[in-house]
Amino acid sequence: MPTQLEIAQTGEISPAVRAVASREEIPPGQLRDDVANGLTVIPANPGHANLVPIGIGRGLRIKVNANIGTSAAYPDPERELDKLHVAVDAGADTVMDLSTGESAAVDRARRLILAHSPAPVGTVPIYQAGLEALERRGAIVEMTVDDIFAVIERHAEDGVDFVTVHCGVTQAALDALRATGRVADVVSRGGAFLVAWMLHHGRENPLYEQYDRLLEIARRHDVTLSLGDGFRPGSIADATDAAQLTELTTLGGLVLRARRAGVQVMVEGPGHVPLDQVEANIRVAKAVCCGAPFYVLGPLVTDVAPGYDHISGAIGGAVAGWAGADFLCYVTPAEHLGLPEAEHVREGIVAARIAAHAADIARARPAALARDREMSVARKALDWETQFRLAVDPARARTLRGALNPADEEACSMCGPLCAMRIVADALRAKPGS
Amino acid sequence: MPTQLEIAQTGEISPAVRAVASREEIPPGQLRDDVANGLTVIPANPGHANLVPIGIGRGLRIKVNANIGTSAAYPDPERELDKLHVAVDAGADTVMDLSTGESAAVDRARRLILAHSPAPVGTVPIYQAGLEALERRGAIVEMTVDDIFAVIERHAEDGVDFVTVHCGVTQAALDALRATGRVADVVSRGGAFLVAWMLHHGRENPLYEQYDRLLEIARRHDVTLSLGDGFRPGSIADATDAAQLTELTTLGGLVLRARRAGVQVMVEGPGHVPLDQVEANIRVAKAVCCGAPFYVLGPLVTDVAPGYDHISGAIGGAVAGWAGADFLCYVTPAEHLGLPEAEHVREGIVAARIAAHAADIARARPAALARDREMSVARKALDWETQFRLAVDPARARTLRGALNPADEEACSMCGPLCAMRIVADALRAKPGS
Repeated sequence: MPTQLEIAQTGEISPAVRAVASREEIPPGQLRDDVANGLTVIPANPGHANLVPIGIGRGLRIKVNANIGTSAAYPDPERELDKLHVAVDAGADTVMDLSTGESAAVDRARRLILAHSPAPVGTVPIYQAGLEALERRGAIVEMTVDDIFAVIERHAEDGVDFVTVHCGVTQAALDALRATGRVADVVSRGGAFLVAWMLHHGRENPLYEQYDRLLEIARRHDVTLSLGDGFRPGSIADATDAAQLTELTTLGGLVLRARRAGVQVMVEGPGHVPLDQVEANIRVAKAVCCGAPFYVLGPLVTDVAPGYDHISGAIGGAVAGWAGADFLCYVTPAEHLGLPEAEHVREGIVAARIAAHAADIARARPAALARDREMSVARKALDWETQFRLAVDPARARTLRGALNPADEEACSMCGPLCAMRIVADALRAKPGS
Repeated sequence: MPTQLEIAQTGEISPAVRAVASREEIPPGQLRDDVANGLTVIPANPGHANLVPIGIGRGLRIKVNANIGTSAAYPDPERELDKLHVAVDAGADTVMDLSTGESAAVDRARRLILAHSPAPVGTVPIYQAGLEALERRGAIVEMTVDDIFAVIERHAEDGVDFVTVHCGVTQAALDALRATGRVADVVSRGGAFLVAWMLHHGRENPLYEQYDRLLEIARRHDVTLSLGDGFRPGSIADATDAAQLTELTTLGGLVLRARRAGVQVMVEGPGHVPLDQVEANIRVAKAVCCGAPFYVLGPLVTDVAPGYDHISGAIGGAVAGWAGADFLCYVTPAEHLGLPEAEHVREGIVAARIAAHAADIARARPAALARDREMSVARKALDWETQFRLAVDPARARTLRGALNPADEEACSMCGPLCAMRIVADALRAKPGS
């Protein structure tokens, strides 16, 4: 079965392209061309039943992802299923199942999430390859090359729509890291597994060395590759350094090879980045990766906001989206402290959606501008029901207004009879000609 | 008694300049020169006992303000005193008492807050002028010119350190608003009072027409003027329009007149501004207002985030601070819904501090960069106590980590034994030469 990329290259408009174009209000032919050229991806594994496909890329609404998944401390898959529902209800466009813990439980969690998620599901197969090696052979570094590809194949067969693969974690990037040094070295879990393996065996990263083997699996299942940034900076002090740029440059070359193989591909970006470097990061990545959809984690604009990293990530994500990022991975208030609970998932998604929407406004997307205008008209009219409907989180807006106001308050408890909008409207009505 | 501006202009280094310079780690002579030139203000009314002075302006850490104060629906001054303590504990650099309601209660609230606040206190006297007119004469527009100046004098005598005065709400700016139209007209409460008054009486704004009378009061008490933006956009659709720019241009001229009169002055800015217009807003304001310290409310980068406007404001505030804003007014999650509660005040201040710190990092302030580096070193070392100490909200970080982790977890419940930092540190230790 051909991939979305291959179908688009024949000139055909697939049902997925048609559905996405309709929801995004763009001509299907334009979307097909962007998919054909690799500027947009539609992660849609035919093995994922009941998937509602979405597009990520050029000219489309910026998408947001929620990371969920078990850990050794919280192994219950049902808990993650709750988070899936919370994430989707809060407006997540995709979810990534980052489950770790006991390998059989990881398989169960993934299959459960895939069975229940209408949103595209991503995974990071190297996690399971590493934890299976730990389980069976006593050490992460004991994973074999065949183990790694077998796990990727298993995820693809289960219906996973996109996989993060850290193909740019090369010996050359590791040399760059050694040469310049870093405050926080490697903070990517998948990157860390591979770096440990490469150091232990003195060999090149198999995901790089045997990239064609990866492409063959991805093409067969139309799994979109998300080229991971194993050397993403995990500290403001490490941003935009030699290791990061060496990896990114490598990923640019791998983008072209994926496209030539008929495989959909996007690229992942940082991480911890000071605000003044965010735009440059996005523009360089877009250029060196030939316009591939760019997927950022945050970025976080400070290291000192544990408990509030969703806010730090919203600042970075908004600027990144404005500069051209297509896809924002949420960060929750639990980041750097522990595995998030359902409420943190909700807060993380809302913050990421605010960032994405602010970027969509800055990029003058008509639907985004129209929504804010409608909200302002409703606000001036003190039309609360319309304000709730248009709010990023209607339930929260309604609850807060209810809690903060006397039942008979038409305006709000901040100004009451001194409401600016009402005073000026009345004054203008009294003196229309003045 | 001379103002801080006048003292600095004599070449003398005042105790306030010395104290601020020491805390900011800059040479006192440089700070004195910036105060003398009006690029920095030190709002410090000699009548405010126990004030710990702060500086707002060139080269200084970006400051954050918390708005508190009673309203008709919540008239209890003690409730606002709680908010004062919450705001200061959370790191507010200043507070504004925006109390409304019954006039005698407004006086009590202001005096109570001034007596308890070590931070500079600002007010918006026109609120009280308007509500006294409503109380005594049945309508806001029945306030007299003498009423307005009498309230300003009363606030100055009480020890208020800075006052928002909407001197740029002129008939010319109102003409500009009429000519272009707006979705949300006037959303500034003080601006609305004045617009209603101007329409009712067919007269020019007395704060503009009798600006010298205002300067005389401000000079006598060293009250810093904060030139308010009565025509700030209250909708993304209204941003950077003719009314806003007409007012801003007027304020630029008033800055020079204040400086010549020995009065410290800063300028207020929007409001609701799309992300792509934030930098331009700040740069234009700084230029046309001759480098006066710039104080922004948010700005909010979308209209659709009621319940989360602290996040929308943090996005705008970070970019504004990076572009040159000196002072961020917080926005709370209650904005557009009702008067905030103490918990909203705390959340608002933390979000504004994250924005200010992200901007300080982007502007490469050494203290900000050093703090993030220290945090990253502690994070890599899994040194939790140092991480808590450096966190923007230590109590929250500690509580969340405690809630999300088993007691014996050295790393965290997200990764547990799969901690990237630990894996790579171990691998590098095992193969130091590789």
